Amino acid sequence: MQKKILLLSTGGTIASVVSDAGLVPKESGEQLINMLGELPYDITVEDILQLDSSNIQPEEWKLIAEKIFENRNKYDGIVVSHGTDTMAYTASMLAFMLQNINIPVVLTGSQVPINVVLSDAPDNLRLAFAAAASCCPNIYLAFDRKVMLGCRSVKVRTINFDAFESVNVPPVAKVTSDGLVFSEQNLPKNTKECTLNTEINPHVSLVKLFPGFDPKLLFAMVESGCKGIVIEAYGLGGMNYIRRNMVGAVGELIRYGIPVIASSQCLYERSDLTKYEVGREALLEGAISARDMTSESAITKLMWGLGQGWDVHQIAEFFNTDVVGEVTIEKDDTLRVD
Amino acid sequence: MQKKILLLSTGGTIASVVSDAGLVPKESGEQLINMLGELPYDITVEDILQLDSSNIQPEEWKLIAEKIFENRNKYDGIVVSHGTDTMAYTASMLAFMLQNINIPVVLTGSQVPINVVLSDAPDNLRLAFAAAASCCPNIYLAFDRKVMLGCRSVKVRTINFDAFESVNVPPVAKVTSDGLVFSEQNLPKNTKECTLNTEINPHVSLVKLFPGFDPKLLFAMVESGCKGIVIEAYGLGGMNYIRRNMVGAVGELIRYGIPVIASSQCLYERSDLTKYEVGREALLEGAISARDMTSESAITKLMWGLGQGWDVHQIAEFFNTDVVGEVTIEKDDTLRVD
Repeated sequence: MQKKILLLSTGGTIASVVSDAGLVPKESGEQLINMLGELPYDITVEDILQLDSSNIQPEEWKLIAEKIFENRNKYDGIVVSHGTDTMAYTASMLAFMLQNINIPVVLTGSQVPINVVLSDAPDNLRLAFAAAASCCPNIYLAFDRKVMLGCRSVKVRTINFDAFESVNVPPVAKVTSDGLVFSEQNLPKNTKECTLNTEINPHVSLVKLFPGFDPKLLFAMVESGCKGIVIEAYGLGGMNYIRRNMVGAVGELIRYGIPVIASSQCLYERSDLTKYEVGREALLEGAISARDMTSESAITKLMWGLGQGWDVHQIAEFFNTDVVGEVTIEKDDTLRVD
Repeated sequence: MQKKILLLSTGGTIASVVSDAGLVPKESGEQLINMLGELPYDITVEDILQLDSSNIQPEEWKLIAEKIFENRNKYDGIVVSHGTDTMAYTASMLAFMLQNINIPVVLTGSQVPINVVLSDAPDNLRLAFAAAASCCPNIYLAFDRKVMLGCRSVKVRTINFDAFESVNVPPVAKVTSDGLVFSEQNLPKNTKECTLNTEINPHVSLVKLFPGFDPKLLFAMVESGCKGIVIEAYGLGGMNYIRRNMVGAVGELIRYGIPVIASSQCLYERSDLTKYEVGREALLEGAISARDMTSESAITKLMWGLGQGWDVHQIAEFFNTDVVGEVTIEKDDTLRVD
């Protein structure tokens, strides 16, 4: 019997057409499916949004999560067509909102609209359907012959088809002549009941540190309602403390009740605040390490944690936990004085 | 006759030793050179700083630029040893401060201190000296067998030796068994007199857009003294305008005299605000496109432009100009309605 797959369409480049104002999403999910020819699945389509993904925001995350939750027992898998610009954010947030999801949910999109002859859309959609029919339950992003864990994916290219990378973990599966070939990694197994929890607090900010940055601007944001901050610090997570004292500012913010997450502005590999004096000082002040998380996962995890009403200590503990496969927790990650 | 090369040492991992507080820079430039054995150059060493590069800031940029300017006619080339964390920022800023430099200036460092047996420091230093002895006049970053244009380099890895990439242009040269093999790209030729201009305004900020970001925080930063903003927008440079109106906020800021540069949070490939409605709207509001610049180049170029006392229109014109090889200006980059 054919697997039952639901396509939730949300707009994006994949569904865009040329207009006087530039590319604008117009095509329905049904139109997307019609471009693919026959597929060996029993596909149902529902159009839930018609947006360029630059305009996908927390309100849309909630809607998408609810639609997935509603349909999780009616289908074998769900494909979400989505613009590429914020797809990694949506995939990360869905992982937190839909913990222990009981079916595979696969986000996909394309760099070129589906109605263009050399579009990457047909390939990506076919891959997403195949993944939704065959992967273990989880939230994935499928693109350019790779299936990635949603909370580990990052958009790294604006033009070419290899737009997404699975950062710090290998892709879950790749397309070869043998079909979908799975890697040997141990994905977290969802053994509990799936829960829907869309309570988030989007009043956060994501700041990239650069030489000369005035820590005063962090306080200005907090006074303006910002409840948590992810700082993309240098290298392993270092921050300046001479003259402009970022380390001191982090300490002050944390004592004031604002969680500060230190991630790395380097795309690849982990941050490790224990290795250099500049990171250790920040750690001693209470900075929370993002370890090897993507910025997309760090900011969505922070929003979700704040949405639970958690304080700085609870957020710190939450970040010290691998919730959905978004982070690698090594046993010796605590502060060593060696 | 041997080429005369000056080594300016500034600290960094390359010169670090283990201490109770983590790795701390301690070794002098002389100690670095002593670890290399005999080199076919006439090397002079000057220790100008002893800092972890997380603590290198505009004040240090000024000092390094002045030292290079002072010595530009006394040596055939200059090597600057520097921590990796902010090396790409320093290299970018030196390119703006020292336009038309008349000798090769090569920044280098290492992921592992030079006194560790498997350190990458000896290789990187030898490469930097070879580049300083043989490249055309310009500001470079040499690392892991690659010589890159300084204003195109980005630190992308925190652990492995291939820490830096030349983004959107190939490396200037690579090490092979044939020695330093140069690529065929046309580097900008410095034909004018070298100038030293260290006037910069560091009161800027670098914000990474994410779904849910409250544009109010941009105004809070401006009220707190921020004079220009680089926004790492989505994909080709798109921003949301539904509900939280980033596009409208950008327009307001620009009318208020604050230049807003839209770059892409994707590491690779260019931003192009003309392609999608979400980018075009931002362009119509006056957002300045960073095209294919790195964030490191965009933020240092903004600081330097503001340091010249330029207004929004002059900054826009400055960003539409390739000053030191930092950006690819294509002829059809203006707003097309096609």
